Amino acid sequence: MSLSAVEVIRAKRDGAELDERQIRWFLDAYTRGAVADEQASALLMAVFFRGMTPAELSVWTDAMIRSGRRLDLSSVPMPTVDKHSTGGVGDKISLPLCPLVAACGVAVPQLSGRGLGHTGGTLDKLEAIPGIRTSLSGEEFVRQLADIGAVICAAGPDLAPADRKLYALRDVTGTVESIPLIASSIMSKKIAEGTAGLVLDVKFGSGAFMHEVERSRELARTMVGLGDAHGVRTVALLTDMGTPLGLTAGNGLEVRETLEVLEGGGPADVVEVTLALAREMLDLAGVDADPAAALRDGRAMDRWRTMIRAQGGDPDAPLPVARHVEEVRAPAGGHVEGVDAMAVGVAAWRLGAGRARKEDPVSAAAGVVLRVVPGDRVTAGQVVAELHADDPAHMAAGAEAFAAAITVGDRVPERVPRVLERIAPA
Amino acid sequence: MSLSAVEVIRAKRDGAELDERQIRWFLDAYTRGAVADEQASALLMAVFFRGMTPAELSVWTDAMIRSGRRLDLSSVPMPTVDKHSTGGVGDKISLPLCPLVAACGVAVPQLSGRGLGHTGGTLDKLEAIPGIRTSLSGEEFVRQLADIGAVICAAGPDLAPADRKLYALRDVTGTVESIPLIASSIMSKKIAEGTAGLVLDVKFGSGAFMHEVERSRELARTMVGLGDAHGVRTVALLTDMGTPLGLTAGNGLEVRETLEVLEGGGPADVVEVTLALAREMLDLAGVDADPAAALRDGRAMDRWRTMIRAQGGDPDAPLPVARHVEEVRAPAGGHVEGVDAMAVGVAAWRLGAGRARKEDPVSAAAGVVLRVVPGDRVTAGQVVAELHADDPAHMAAGAEAFAAAITVGDRVPERVPRVLERIAPA
Repeated sequence: MSLSAVEVIRAKRDGAELDERQIRWFLDAYTRGAVADEQASALLMAVFFRGMTPAELSVWTDAMIRSGRRLDLSSVPMPTVDKHSTGGVGDKISLPLCPLVAACGVAVPQLSGRGLGHTGGTLDKLEAIPGIRTSLSGEEFVRQLADIGAVICAAGPDLAPADRKLYALRDVTGTVESIPLIASSIMSKKIAEGTAGLVLDVKFGSGAFMHEVERSRELARTMVGLGDAHGVRTVALLTDMGTPLGLTAGNGLEVRETLEVLEGGGPADVVEVTLALAREMLDLAGVDADPAAALRDGRAMDRWRTMIRAQGGDPDAPLPVARHVEEVRAPAGGHVEGVDAMAVGVAAWRLGAGRARKEDPVSAAAGVVLRVVPGDRVTAGQVVAELHADDPAHMAAGAEAFAAAITVGDRVPERVPRVLERIAPA
Repeated sequence: MSLSAVEVIRAKRDGAELDERQIRWFLDAYTRGAVADEQASALLMAVFFRGMTPAELSVWTDAMIRSGRRLDLSSVPMPTVDKHSTGGVGDKISLPLCPLVAACGVAVPQLSGRGLGHTGGTLDKLEAIPGIRTSLSGEEFVRQLADIGAVICAAGPDLAPADRKLYALRDVTGTVESIPLIASSIMSKKIAEGTAGLVLDVKFGSGAFMHEVERSRELARTMVGLGDAHGVRTVALLTDMGTPLGLTAGNGLEVRETLEVLEGGGPADVVEVTLALAREMLDLAGVDADPAAALRDGRAMDRWRTMIRAQGGDPDAPLPVARHVEEVRAPAGGHVEGVDAMAVGVAAWRLGAGRARKEDPVSAAAGVVLRVVPGDRVTAGQVVAELHADDPAHMAAGAEAFAAAITVGDRVPERVPRVLERIAPA
């Protein structure tokens, strides 16, 4: 058994293209425990250096999907389109987007994850709502999707279990940053989830997982190709994550901002990205509807409340409030030249909104509220941000991380649109 | 802890030079079990792709040495020089060389290994001698070295334990073939063994671990540099392993050939390599002696017998004989154009002389006896080799592997000397 594992590792290491039999055998044996973690991590590192051909990647992804079960959404009476974001600071878009698109007649089967490091996770945010359940059975998931068209919950243990194991391994072995490994991880879960269409929000910039737009574009193209190869209509938007999305970063704080958007308000950039993604999702489903109207007239908010209630949450319960709030003031007057997404993300994380290890708890109340955006004029001493934390040690760590987040100076920064480009199947 | 391991892996993966603190921490934590196998294998694969700078390699090797204890040979009243071969088919040279050099006044502290795959191991060969012990305590080892100047035994568990762990890991993770990893593995053990000088026999050609002479030269230069950096005077000979060394491959069969050499006879190439290495060893020790004379006049044989007895063996006991012997005949007349070392090595292995897994036993009697060397004239039906095995299944597997080992045709091959070049510190 281990002889064959070594042969597969050596072949990839030496630049050969792995054949279907090798890939399926390796991933199956790894999932069953017949190939050891140290062998899988060696293969992952070889993949990091050698990449994968489209044929290898397609089989690899398929093997990951088949390691578990693929959900059957045929009982859902509406078209299904999901959305996935590669993660950013203040990226709460899934929360308003899911009920908004559902309100327009397209079901959104949103299986989400938790945050790790400086980017938050949709489930952590949703769980700031008192009473909410994010662990649903497969049957509950499909029923809620059919009834309401909107569901946001955790993936079950039988959804691409090979990915679950590989993801944990990559995290501790320095093999996360590989485009084929990222693409197959994301797409195996989304394809297994049973959605008919998928819109990807692939982020670039300082607060994104990938800083360079070129790498993000390559990842987007790879994922769009994978979706297409597996019968899931997939489109990607490349979006800018150089500054935080919206004015909040932190679980309950982002739910608050979500409610503002669902009330027809909210920060312009959050609305912009939400509508851009909603339009792509509706377009994929062939549904002609105006999502902006659904925000304005309250249909999206109604759907949100129905979704929250269906999952045991109370949409009217007050959101948790942090025990300590500190204001950050501008040291001098001028223009806000920039708000660094990475610094804000790390600050929110340190304030208690994020976790360093998978098993850590997160604070529902902690995080950052920005009072300014790039281009705003500020005077010396003006409050530019609030830091929220449950305990003083977190407050100190968060304040330190936030120190250089906001740059004030003479330069008026150019306003850049959030959505840079759209990538559709070739 | 694992955060730091990931940082080290990522740094190497991305092409950074690791600093002394990172390398020492990683290897120490791995030896203690605080860094996991899957993290170490990811780092090894990154090293495979990125290599190591001379500074990194020197610290890495030093950390491996310091994972255990460095033997103190100061009680040995003669100069000490050891020899290491990268392994080849029919490479029994350590057996005659050790007593020969000792007979010339230089102590040879030979800590050896076992064979894996198609190349044999010195300990497996020595153990064909009835009664011999190859597990000696550190004290026994030093005492025998001081008394007789010749000792061949297994390394103890406290000799470079980090290497022991890394070597086993590399074997199952496809990370064996990396020059810095090979060099540090060999040199950490040889330096820890306490020898003052070291002669390396670095082989190239079909039966060697590295086929290309250029890669062997790079390995030789790397190891010579490492020895020099750690105060061990080191010289390397690059030797040809395109054809088997001598006429035998197999444990007891190679002991028989060793005795022929010690009696002043034996195959010309075995004598050539033995004397070339002996001269280098004597030269490193500053001892002016004629090893050819020591073979001729029986001093080397006397020292062999003393060494075997000191380790509990009976130098006069008959060597084990295989239950089955089959002759291989030339299919046609002509010249022996070539004898492929790899084919002979694999045949001997399959006949029972080698092992596929570390825990497998080996046959003391099995192996190949060649009756011809390249350039010999043969007639159709002439016996060109004998295959020795203890059971018919091994015989069949060995015969199949041997089938294409000997090429007979019209061409008279050029005779190539075994020793291609000498590599000394710059």
